[in-house]
Amino acid sequence: MALFVQKYGGTSVGSVERIEAVADKVKRFKDQGHDIVVVVSAMSGETNRLIGLAKDITDNPDPREYDVLVSTGEQVTISLLSMALKKRGLGAKSYTGGQVRIHTDSSHTKARIQSIDTSKMRSDLDEGNVIVVAGFQGMDDDGNITTLGRGGSDTTGVALAAALKADECQIYTDVDGVYTTDPRVVEGARRLDKITFEEMLEMASLGSKVLQIRSVEFAGKYNVPLRVLSSFQDGGGTLITTEETDSVENPIISGIAFNRDEAKLTVLGVPDLPGIASRILGPVSSANIEVDMIVQNVAADQTTDFTFTVHRNDYDKALAILEETANELGAREVKGDNKIAKVSIVGVGMRSHAGVASNMFTTLAKENINIQMISTSEIKVSVVISEKYMELAVRALHSAFELDQADSVAE
Amino acid sequence: MALFVQKYGGTSVGSVERIEAVADKVKRFKDQGHDIVVVVSAMSGETNRLIGLAKDITDNPDPREYDVLVSTGEQVTISLLSMALKKRGLGAKSYTGGQVRIHTDSSHTKARIQSIDTSKMRSDLDEGNVIVVAGFQGMDDDGNITTLGRGGSDTTGVALAAALKADECQIYTDVDGVYTTDPRVVEGARRLDKITFEEMLEMASLGSKVLQIRSVEFAGKYNVPLRVLSSFQDGGGTLITTEETDSVENPIISGIAFNRDEAKLTVLGVPDLPGIASRILGPVSSANIEVDMIVQNVAADQTTDFTFTVHRNDYDKALAILEETANELGAREVKGDNKIAKVSIVGVGMRSHAGVASNMFTTLAKENINIQMISTSEIKVSVVISEKYMELAVRALHSAFELDQADSVAE
Repeated sequence: MALFVQKYGGTSVGSVERIEAVADKVKRFKDQGHDIVVVVSAMSGETNRLIGLAKDITDNPDPREYDVLVSTGEQVTISLLSMALKKRGLGAKSYTGGQVRIHTDSSHTKARIQSIDTSKMRSDLDEGNVIVVAGFQGMDDDGNITTLGRGGSDTTGVALAAALKADECQIYTDVDGVYTTDPRVVEGARRLDKITFEEMLEMASLGSKVLQIRSVEFAGKYNVPLRVLSSFQDGGGTLITTEETDSVENPIISGIAFNRDEAKLTVLGVPDLPGIASRILGPVSSANIEVDMIVQNVAADQTTDFTFTVHRNDYDKALAILEETANELGAREVKGDNKIAKVSIVGVGMRSHAGVASNMFTTLAKENINIQMISTSEIKVSVVISEKYMELAVRALHSAFELDQADSVAE
Repeated sequence: MALFVQKYGGTSVGSVERIEAVADKVKRFKDQGHDIVVVVSAMSGETNRLIGLAKDITDNPDPREYDVLVSTGEQVTISLLSMALKKRGLGAKSYTGGQVRIHTDSSHTKARIQSIDTSKMRSDLDEGNVIVVAGFQGMDDDGNITTLGRGGSDTTGVALAAALKADECQIYTDVDGVYTTDPRVVEGARRLDKITFEEMLEMASLGSKVLQIRSVEFAGKYNVPLRVLSSFQDGGGTLITTEETDSVENPIISGIAFNRDEAKLTVLGVPDLPGIASRILGPVSSANIEVDMIVQNVAADQTTDFTFTVHRNDYDKALAILEETANELGAREVKGDNKIAKVSIVGVGMRSHAGVASNMFTTLAKENINIQMISTSEIKVSVVISEKYMELAVRALHSAFELDQADSVAE
């Protein structure tokens, strides 16, 4: 007997048939004696339809009114799912964000949850009801409807689970869990039964787009066990927790993430003076271009080489800015490359294991893959390589760290 | 400088283009210095689309969830109209029924407004904002979303006008006012500049479906001047007030209503005993059939003839019931006719004028139209005639009461 908060995304509730399937799933949990709070997104396509109406009127819709508009998408889903649950003989009650007192600040279209009053939900649960809450929305001090921004339904789920001290927040999606790497790249990719919040954050920020980063941060902060499962097939999914299981039983590396959205820029022969990094990156960030990896080589003969990566879409803009800066600084040359990929190994296990990075570099060397840049964090090592070697590198690393082998953690 | 509550129905806001046109209209009033509260319905077709989704799930949607669902229709319109107003440089704020504190009872799908807290609207108006309110909806004591039932947006408009003591509640629709009779039947039908609430109620209940009866009753009760105008063309529309203008200047009859939705049933030769009417009508009303006109002729030879009308759709069912009752009562014969029409003259002026009914009967006699039933109220005389004479009767009466002649009330 547990309390589960279950979040179903837009695809999972994308049609009346799928809403009925969600109702079936909820009923199975309920029949097992669990208490269920369901958080739903708008039916897939609906939010875009609503935004389209607004765009027909103005390119700059008033943010307050935009929230009034798009919040109707989830409101439709909560009512339909509640009807489907009632049809199955369950007690069910729908709530908009405002009705269930998800209190946010007033930053329309990107509001942050400030508090949740759970008293109403508690008494509904005590009466045996399934509670169906509109994701992605709340209400501010003045009773204005707010939205948490795209993908905010995950955050609603985690926030409700935290407020209700739920046993688990289950995120139902169209994948059946978090994998050691993308199964489309490595056939032997394995679903992880468990992963830590930190690992999940690294995986998510590196391109494994299973969960919204913000909801993972939130779950980690409030220590809400988070489980990613498939809406469409059975299975235990992947549990994301704070628990670091014993490293003897566990692999050192949990997964391999990769990303080919980046481009690399280098200034060669810059005078090696204090403040040079900010002279180079200042104009880039002023142009609202986000910089990811930064590497500066050790100086030789009073000059240095400085390299950084940006999103591939920003490459041309960043290159033009950098050429201007290089001129001003009297640098020797500017080089760029937008045919790169970033490959990262992620795992809390590497904290207690020496030689993880060197194993990675050896593996890549064996495959004759040249490493262009290296960047590390406590639970991650990232390298930049030529894009054409990306899949080879991922497969080689997946095998070198024995990620394709079932281990004691597997079901 | 006045305060107007303006209600725009589903057709008037049926597309983004029409919403823009409503915004233009509102701006013109605002530019003249008036304060404006706008009440809108769902975009035409939207409510039916939402109901369709519910019907795909269940034939008996939970009433609470049904209200959560259909109330999104108006919520979309208020946000879009507010965006369009803002685009025109006006201050505008949208409110759902619950947000603007339209407090109702808990009768989902047919809730009644109990109170409206106007403090928020007052301060918004004082700041120069146009207030855009979702029609047709409210919130009960427990914060549940309620709806007032189909056509309830008119009621929202009138209730807001009453609560705000507005100078006028303007109902924008696809007709440009209330006519002396249907212009499709009588070419000379004239738009009325003024009509009393009582006349409007008689006209509405007799088939002139310009306004919801409930909103007219409500406006009469709270003495809210109500004006019916066209969304699509300019013009003063028809003002519905309590003011009875001087009968010297005014026509005795305001309009002619007609209705071919009824059918007539007669029992001949019923024993003329006390309680006979309830013996006859009891089984009919038990079958949920509404009875409109009832006529009992003076008894001759201990038996009487008893006639009543029902909706034409109920004719077969009523006939079967009546035949059974007639058998039990030992009546001589049952007759029915579903090829009838009811034609009524309506006007507060007839209170102070003798001979109105006789003028009506004479006019019909001149046209050789046989009157089958007569029923009167203080401001109305209705006759039942054969359906085939209906248009002839309406035209003859329209002319006999000089309704096609411009008079001092006309613009």
